[in-house]
Amino acid sequence: MIGIDPGLVETGFGVLESGPRGVSLLDAGVISTSRSAPLESRLHALHGAVHRLLERFAPDLLVVEDLYADYKFPRTAILMGHARGVICLAARERQVTILPLAPSEVKRAVTANGAASKSQVQRGVQRLLGLAVVPKPSHVADALGLAVTGLFRVKGRLPS
Amino acid sequence: MIGIDPGLVETGFGVLESGPRGVSLLDAGVISTSRSAPLESRLHALHGAVHRLLERFAPDLLVVEDLYADYKFPRTAILMGHARGVICLAARERQVTILPLAPSEVKRAVTANGAASKSQVQRGVQRLLGLAVVPKPSHVADALGLAVTGLFRVKGRLPS
Repeated sequence: MIGIDPGLVETGFGVLESGPRGVSLLDAGVISTSRSAPLESRLHALHGAVHRLLERFAPDLLVVEDLYADYKFPRTAILMGHARGVICLAARERQVTILPLAPSEVKRAVTANGAASKSQVQRGVQRLLGLAVVPKPSHVADALGLAVTGLFRVKGRLPS
Repeated sequence: MIGIDPGLVETGFGVLESGPRGVSLLDAGVISTSRSAPLESRLHALHGAVHRLLERFAPDLLVVEDLYADYKFPRTAILMGHARGVICLAARERQVTILPLAPSEVKRAVTANGAASKSQVQRGVQRLLGLAVVPKPSHVADALGLAVTGLFRVKGRLPS
């Protein structure tokens, strides 16, 4: 199960595995692209990095935030769309099924509050996964929140 | 020179060639994707179709509208971003340089009016390229307008 929080500047990702002894965190981090590079080079770098993650971990599902239109900055939303587009393309090319989840569903799953703040999501993810530290930056916590909620959907319960 | 007007439902394209006897229209049309297919399949189809166009015509430049944020419907803008993202990726993968142009520059080049209507752009493109009929739908006219304006930029004058 991989969760991805798309962004042109920073894309968060988190890879979880569910086994008989619970859920393990396999990898998590941020894919960054250079602000000084042309847009197409940044998309190419992001697309390649997602391909490598999907090749390495061969997840059964890729969880992303559902499309929503609640952006303060339309330009940022359009650029996020470019990033999300090449991520969805990589999933399709690797034949990984995409599970889109509403932000409110993720917040409810990890904090029991559909309108939780970023720091509440970070602490909820830390608690659910038994992490020694709060996952940072928030893109990573959001990606892990997506992956955890994806597991919840598939397994019918939160990881124990 | 290829002009592309990105859209998830319909992407317009127009391919022009500039030779000693003026400008020729090599191909123009619309890449459509099925509204009933998942987003990732639609992006995959669009990405593949753009790859095939770039392979077939090997253009030196791909002209697209510059990013702008003047959308009435944010969701449409984000979906356009997904489409534009995989188009830019295909250009990068085929090593075709992208030339982004402002809509006002295209309108000024084909109609002498930076705030021209869609039908004025269609008629301007028809006149500049000596087409027997008005290019339709407007996505095709917009793509041809981008390609013509790209030629203008590169050659320093409008096609005669």
